[in-house]
Amino acid sequence: MTAHRRLTIGLFGFGVVGEGLYKVLHQTLSLNATIKKICIKDPHKKRNAPAELFTTDRDELLNDETINVIVEVINESDAAFQIISIALKNNKAVVSASKKMIAEHLPEILRLQQETGMPFLCESSACASIPVIRNLEEYYDNDLLHSLRAIVNGSTNYILTKMFENKLDFKTALLEAQQLGFAEANPTLDVDGWDAAHKWVILLCHAYGIVTTTDNILFTGIQNVNENDANVGREKNYEIRLVAQAKKLMNGKIAAFVLPQFVKRDDHLSFVKNEYNGVVIESSFADKQFFYGKGAGSFPTASAVLSDISALRYDYRYEYKKLYHHTPNELTNDFYVRVYMSFDEWDFIPREKFEWIEEWHAQEARPDGMAGRGRKYLIAVIHFKHLAENTWWKQNNTSIILAPDPIIEDMELRKLKKKSLELAGISQ
Amino acid sequence: MTAHRRLTIGLFGFGVVGEGLYKVLHQTLSLNATIKKICIKDPHKKRNAPAELFTTDRDELLNDETINVIVEVINESDAAFQIISIALKNNKAVVSASKKMIAEHLPEILRLQQETGMPFLCESSACASIPVIRNLEEYYDNDLLHSLRAIVNGSTNYILTKMFENKLDFKTALLEAQQLGFAEANPTLDVDGWDAAHKWVILLCHAYGIVTTTDNILFTGIQNVNENDANVGREKNYEIRLVAQAKKLMNGKIAAFVLPQFVKRDDHLSFVKNEYNGVVIESSFADKQFFYGKGAGSFPTASAVLSDISALRYDYRYEYKKLYHHTPNELTNDFYVRVYMSFDEWDFIPREKFEWIEEWHAQEARPDGMAGRGRKYLIAVIHFKHLAENTWWKQNNTSIILAPDPIIEDMELRKLKKKSLELAGISQ
Repeated sequence: MTAHRRLTIGLFGFGVVGEGLYKVLHQTLSLNATIKKICIKDPHKKRNAPAELFTTDRDELLNDETINVIVEVINESDAAFQIISIALKNNKAVVSASKKMIAEHLPEILRLQQETGMPFLCESSACASIPVIRNLEEYYDNDLLHSLRAIVNGSTNYILTKMFENKLDFKTALLEAQQLGFAEANPTLDVDGWDAAHKWVILLCHAYGIVTTTDNILFTGIQNVNENDANVGREKNYEIRLVAQAKKLMNGKIAAFVLPQFVKRDDHLSFVKNEYNGVVIESSFADKQFFYGKGAGSFPTASAVLSDISALRYDYRYEYKKLYHHTPNELTNDFYVRVYMSFDEWDFIPREKFEWIEEWHAQEARPDGMAGRGRKYLIAVIHFKHLAENTWWKQNNTSIILAPDPIIEDMELRKLKKKSLELAGISQ
Repeated sequence: MTAHRRLTIGLFGFGVVGEGLYKVLHQTLSLNATIKKICIKDPHKKRNAPAELFTTDRDELLNDETINVIVEVINESDAAFQIISIALKNNKAVVSASKKMIAEHLPEILRLQQETGMPFLCESSACASIPVIRNLEEYYDNDLLHSLRAIVNGSTNYILTKMFENKLDFKTALLEAQQLGFAEANPTLDVDGWDAAHKWVILLCHAYGIVTTTDNILFTGIQNVNENDANVGREKNYEIRLVAQAKKLMNGKIAAFVLPQFVKRDDHLSFVKNEYNGVVIESSFADKQFFYGKGAGSFPTASAVLSDISALRYDYRYEYKKLYHHTPNELTNDFYVRVYMSFDEWDFIPREKFEWIEEWHAQEARPDGMAGRGRKYLIAVIHFKHLAENTWWKQNNTSIILAPDPIIEDMELRKLKKKSLELAGISQ
């Protein structure tokens, strides 16, 4: 019987997650893991733990040979990367929650793992309490994963839910999210989609062996979604979610993006409300799976860190099978999407860039005189490459929301276009 | 860096799951696992695999020292137990999908693991493709798990969905389930709740460290649920599910049962339709989590077996922390439940056994003259112990369905009773 490794932990960071972890570890004695030292930035702040545990000198942790696990839950990306680099080189296993840092340094982190042979676990970096990384590593193999659709950012999901269900405007909903602690004081990372894109970089690696950056993933947040969009959604019996999506196309390449999306009421993601996260995975073998849980917060994040610590006892590491044991997948922008767009002026919209337009609504005001406020909208099909190479669609207050099931592949396009033009009474 | 163990597998059973696993393994070469021999019962049946792989002599697998993993996916409980016992004693790791066998021999299987030090993994035995056992082992520790509610049987869930959504009667729905392969030719194990109870025995062990048998868990299936019940549910905006439930009561003991239950439309379990399974876990740290996926079928089951095989490469084993590292939890029948019951005759119902009755409906026929057919029903509160010690509630075609949030603890009872009697205009 394998003896479990005794874990001696050096912890970086004692904010909500760090303190949560400290409490959680205290309540799970069976784990056989102890925190030996905690490195913090501000030595004067009052902490809910014995003073002798704390230090401001990172080398006290990184050079301590009795510490075999470094857990890093700090907020600064550059400092976090330095810490985990030294830790791996000093033969320490690493558990990290820093999604931004991981997304920004993915190639280096992969290389460090290969060079040092040390495990680097980061379950909490995407969807916190939902064990999605472990499942992608263990359950799904390269050629079997058809698609991945997820709500990975709780703040924006909370705001969208409130806009939709309580008919709050964007600003009021954001303020409420901030008051409840679901959104940061500076909400740009969440609201503009950066946080979701960081998580998507991490998950694309574990799902498809793709090593990329946010520069190569088309994303936006919910900054331009407005009440009028919510009204259109309600009319069509759709809800709005910020959806991170990846799909294996018929040519074997991967379409991936993070964009607001209309979802049907019977879509699993429509079930995910408020600050929750959810992941829908479709594959050949397990078929359709849906994971739902809290994606942020002190204890949900700490519980994911804890599961990584627990896995280290039996030498668990990610194998990155899709990256190292298969031909890794490639991203592509060569497909079409069906989009809804709302905007203030027709002049902002280069109509000739669409393959075809299915609906256009040019009303200057809604019948009730309330919500329209001159917003116009269209539903149309556009080449994804055009969106990837241009930015007009997120400027001038223009709002883009993908249609349900938005991806249209090359071979479907002609057929769909013909049908759509026939419906509109136009023959070519 | 730990070298991964090379796995050489002896497979027992080549039915839908065994053949599914064989195909799945062929498509996941990176696993470094090969099937050396397959033991089957009928040597004359045509098989979709090379003839030299097959044998009818189990000792060819169990005594082969080059085989280090026995995977057992046969249907016969007694034979399966013999196989896994010998395998563990011969120092082979075991992966089993036989829920009935595991539930019937749990104490022996636990003892065998302790004596031999060999791992026994069985993720596929409960909810197939949903990694619930691994999550209960790794994520949740003893004092943190508030409750577990699950739909663990796909056949009955399919039948209930069809009765509810398509207004089919029980027999037609069952026939449809059988034609689609979601129910066995002999459906008693599924329909009467045995299969769900077996899975609940397994999950109670991993969740709470409780080692019990189906004799000690109150359960019934959906055999007596009828269209009238579905109508009552619809009127109240509830759906019906066969729910396996476990809850830590305020006295620290565990209430556990498998019974039909009304669920509200916004309940996570109401989202689980057709042949799918779902598990809702509430805990202090991860808060509320919901896992959803296929609970049966060739590939979903094979994918769970595969994840166990994959875990064996890094010597993963269940620790049964709640059983061995904590004071194990105890089951209790000392609580009350709010129940709906429908029946043909008042004489079948010992009314004095209820704490109080909140509604009674004695109509001989419904206004539309259709669905009522003389069924009567009541909603009442009863001591769970009474249900556990008597069987009148499942005889004479009596149907029992728990109310949403059915558990009432001792200290809540008096308050609720007073309020309920006041509402009924009765003062004590």
